[in-house]
Formats: sequence, structure tokens, C-alpha cells
Amino acid sequence: METISSHQCYGGTVGCYRHISTSTKCPMRFTAFVPSKPTGAALIFLSGLTCTEENFTTKAGAYRIAAKLGLMIIAPDTSPRGDDVPDDESISLGKGAGFYLDATQAPWSTHYRMYSYIAKELPELLKAYFPIISFGLFGHSMGGSGALTIGMKHPDLFKSLSVFAPVSNPSQGGWGPAALTAYLGTDKTAWVPYDATELMKTYNGPKLPPILIDQGLADSAYKGGRLNPEAFVAAAREKAQPIEYRTHEGYDHGYFFIQTFMEDHLRHHAAQLNEVTPHMKWIAPNQY
Amino acid sequence: METISSHQCYGGTVGCYRHISTSTKCPMRFTAFVPSKPTGAALIFLSGLTCTEENFTTKAGAYRIAAKLGLMIIAPDTSPRGDDVPDDESISLGKGAGFYLDATQAPWSTHYRMYSYIAKELPELLKAYFPIISFGLFGHSMGGSGALTIGMKHPDLFKSLSVFAPVSNPSQGGWGPAALTAYLGTDKTAWVPYDATELMKTYNGPKLPPILIDQGLADSAYKGGRLNPEAFVAAAREKAQPIEYRTHEGYDHGYFFIQTFMEDHLRHHAAQLNEVTPHMKWIAPNQY
Repeated sequence: METISSHQCYGGTVGCYRHISTSTKCPMRFTAFVPSKPTGAALIFLSGLTCTEENFTTKAGAYRIAAKLGLMIIAPDTSPRGDDVPDDESISLGKGAGFYLDATQAPWSTHYRMYSYIAKELPELLKAYFPIISFGLFGHSMGGSGALTIGMKHPDLFKSLSVFAPVSNPSQGGWGPAALTAYLGTDKTAWVPYDATELMKTYNGPKLPPILIDQGLADSAYKGGRLNPEAFVAAAREKAQPIEYRTHEGYDHGYFFIQTFMEDHLRHHAAQLNEVTPHMKWIAPNQY
Repeated sequence: METISSHQCYGGTVGCYRHISTSTKCPMRFTAFVPSKPTGAALIFLSGLTCTEENFTTKAGAYRIAAKLGLMIIAPDTSPRGDDVPDDESISLGKGAGFYLDATQAPWSTHYRMYSYIAKELPELLKAYFPIISFGLFGHSMGGSGALTIGMKHPDLFKSLSVFAPVSNPSQGGWGPAALTAYLGTDKTAWVPYDATELMKTYNGPKLPPILIDQGLADSAYKGGRLNPEAFVAAAREKAQPIEYRTHEGYDHGYFFIQTFMEDHLRHHAAQLNEVTPHMKWIAPNQY
């Protein structure tokens, strides 16, 4: 693993790192904030369409409270990259649009394996390099889809969950059908593992952590029916899954919305990870 | 004045605006955060070399605490822009490098009038559009030079001052001599009004507000002698000017450093503006 850059921030370190991924068969980058007093809790943030590993670290305003809570935060890239990686001119297919799935269709199936990368390779790599005890998972938009679907498939690994403006039911519309057809083919049963709402409808795995969902009501993707968080919320309530779904007048789809509610998400993760990993409880409430 | 974009953030609004400047004779952009409960205090932040109006608003992490304190923050561009504005391939001359001065030399003197723009035109424009009672001024690097020199020349207008890693004595080295020669000519007496240390040495105007200065010790510009805040601090102490000069191990020149100490700067400004503008004192300390 190679360090691309490193900056001190709120007493901790913000680094950008590169490594060769066996999942995506190309070099992958991620950013990581390591607080000066890490608790062992590490959150992976999955970004949305068009983003790289840089958007979160530059724009999300997360590190002040992460430093106080002792949280590490890792933001990976959203797709494989490189000259030999296929791409498409649409913003919702190809580079910047990996959809956190393992593609099965040519020409995508060689490199577009972001599901395997996020659910297995990256956490193992991170544990080898950083002092991590427990992982949480969160994300935005397409990354909200990734966080919900990967979180439901790996409740053993990701012990806290939250999302901002998630793509919640992609097989039913929005950016989903075109991308899922290209990556996975026309058989819609192959889409189910990557559709949070469809997955939740048939969920019978271990108890999931409570899920915090924030949605801005001035979000053009939401208003255009591309997100549909209510479909996921309805499916989750049908399963008695604890959900806190909050809507916010006036907020749109971008990082000014995300940063406004970031502290709530980090406290949600810290509280949940403290509960499931009691040895982290040395963070006294009055310290943050 | 034209609104380019507007986003809700921490209950307030982050906007990007464009207007035709009579000072720089070209369209100028600035960003502005307006809190939901403005106190009438407005801070202008002057950015450093290569920056536009976007760097601060994206990277500085300032709006959470600005919202709590009721502070408006305006971040203007760092130079005139446009196809008919002269430029240079150096990062420290031309576009992105206005040095907050009024150029007297061809080809710069037509458009490069950032001193007049910041010290007069922009505050008047802002007062016409926003509920502003008092201004504070702060900045980073080249913008630190701008904040100190303009603040010293207009203590009537800018009633609070702070800087991050300021270019403090540009006539003596670093990026300064080449830029000042191009903009102002070879007669060094013309450079003095734009050199904070030289200005302070002969300062005999009204009492200035206390100045907060933060400097990272891992800052390559500082280590390379391009900033020299100690020269300004020494000149200020000679004049019994209240200064809080803080150095920080491990911090570099970028926005990860700036965001770490942003809250301290905003509280410094809010406290000072509350003191000189008592009708703003309705902000009770326990509200922030």
C-alpha cells in the first residue's frame, strides 16, 4: 500500500492511499482519517455517482466530530479506474458509477467488482494496516444503495449503518435499470442482491443494526423518483427493522446537505459500535 | 447581482453570486453563507494563491459554527477573471494571484485592482444586499497578506482581524518581489502599502482590533521563508498591538490545517464584533 498524501487535521491524519486490488484488477485509491485517539471503530463511507475518493474528505465536514469520537473514516473510490477499464459516457455507468456490485456482463465483468472490493478486500486490507476493531458502513445516493445492500449481506462485518439520500429501489426506476442491465444482464433476479428494497422484503438474516436515513426534500433526484427511500422504509418496517427516517425541508442532494447532518450520523455510528463492542466504552460521554 | 447557485446548509444558505465589478472591470464571483439567524456580523475571507471563490466554501468547514454564531461569511475570488484579463504562467502572478493590491503597471493596471474591490466596492455591494452591521476580515497565505494590510488601512470598516499562515513581509522575499515588481514597478516605496510588516512598522492610525494568527510548523511555505509571520509579530509587538500568535506542530499549509482552527477564528471574530457592536449582544454565550 502506497501513501499518496498525508495531512494533519484536528490532531489526527488525513491520508490518501493506493493499492493494487485483486477484486477490481487495477490500482484503487481511498482516503482515511485516523484520529489521534482511535477507539478501534472505523466507518467506510460509500460515495455517489461521479465521485472519487476525494469528495467525502474535501466536502463532508466529518473530521472534527470524528476526531472527538475517536472514529476512523475511510472513503474509497466509486469504481475501478485506469486506461484499460471500460467506461461509458453516461454518468450512471462505467467509471464513477460502480454501483457496488460484481458485474457479470462483458465488458464490465473483469474490473467492475466493487461489491467484492467493499465487502471483503478493503476491510481486510484496512485491518492489516490500521488499529480497527469494528466497522460501520454509510453512504450517499448510489453509495447509500451500496451501504444498505452490503450492510444487509454482511451484518457480521458492518455493525452500524446509516445513509444519506439513498438510491433505495434501483430495479424499479431512476438510474438503476440501465446500469443494472449493462452490468448484470436483463434477468431481473440477478438485480435483487443490489436492490436494498427487494433485499429487505425477503431478509431473514441476523438482526440488523438500527438504520438512520436522512433525505432532503429539495433534492432533485428525490423529487424525480430516482431515490425512493420510502420504498425501503416501508419494506423495513414490514420486517420490524428499526429505522429512523428523517426528511428535511429545503435541503438538496449535495454535500451542503450531507455536512449539515454528518454529526448526527457519526454519533449514531459511535453509539451503536460502543454498544456492540463494549471494550470501546472508554470514551466517556462527557469527552464528546 | 446574479445568483449562480444556492444550497441550504446548517439551516442557512450557501450561495454563489456574480456581479460586474467597477474596480476590476470584469464579472466577479463570490460565495456567501447567510445563517438562519444573522446577527449582522459579516466576515470576508481572502483566499490564497491559485484559489477561487470556491475553495473556502468547499474546504474550510466553517459553516457549522458560523450558523451557531450567526455569522455571515463571504469568500471572494482572488483576482479578476476573463479572456481579456492578462495572465502569467507563474502561480504567483496574474489570475488567482491578485495580491489584493491596485496594480499601476501595464498590462496589469486595468483589471488588477483587488485592493479597491475588497476595501470598498465589495463591502458596499454586500451591505446593499444583505443585513450587515459590522465587517470582520480574515484570510490565508496571500489572503493573509490582504487581510492584514487592508485591515490596517481600514480599521473603521473591518472591526475584527485574523489570519492563517499569512504572507507577512512580501517585499523581503518569497512570492512577493516578483509579483510586486510586475504589479507596482521597481520602486519599493510603492510596495509598502501591501506589505503588512512594513505597514505595521510605521502604523499610527486608530487602535486596531486584536489579531489572531495561526501558523503550522510543517508548512513548506513557512519553512521555505515565504510567509515570515514572525516579522509581522515583532513589528506589531513593537507597536504594542495585541497579537495572539500560535504555532502548531505537524500542520501544513492547506485547508486541513485551516479547518482545524476555523472555530477558534470564528469565535475570535464573534467576540470582537460583539464587543464593538453591542447591539449584537443578544447572542447569549450558552447559545453557542
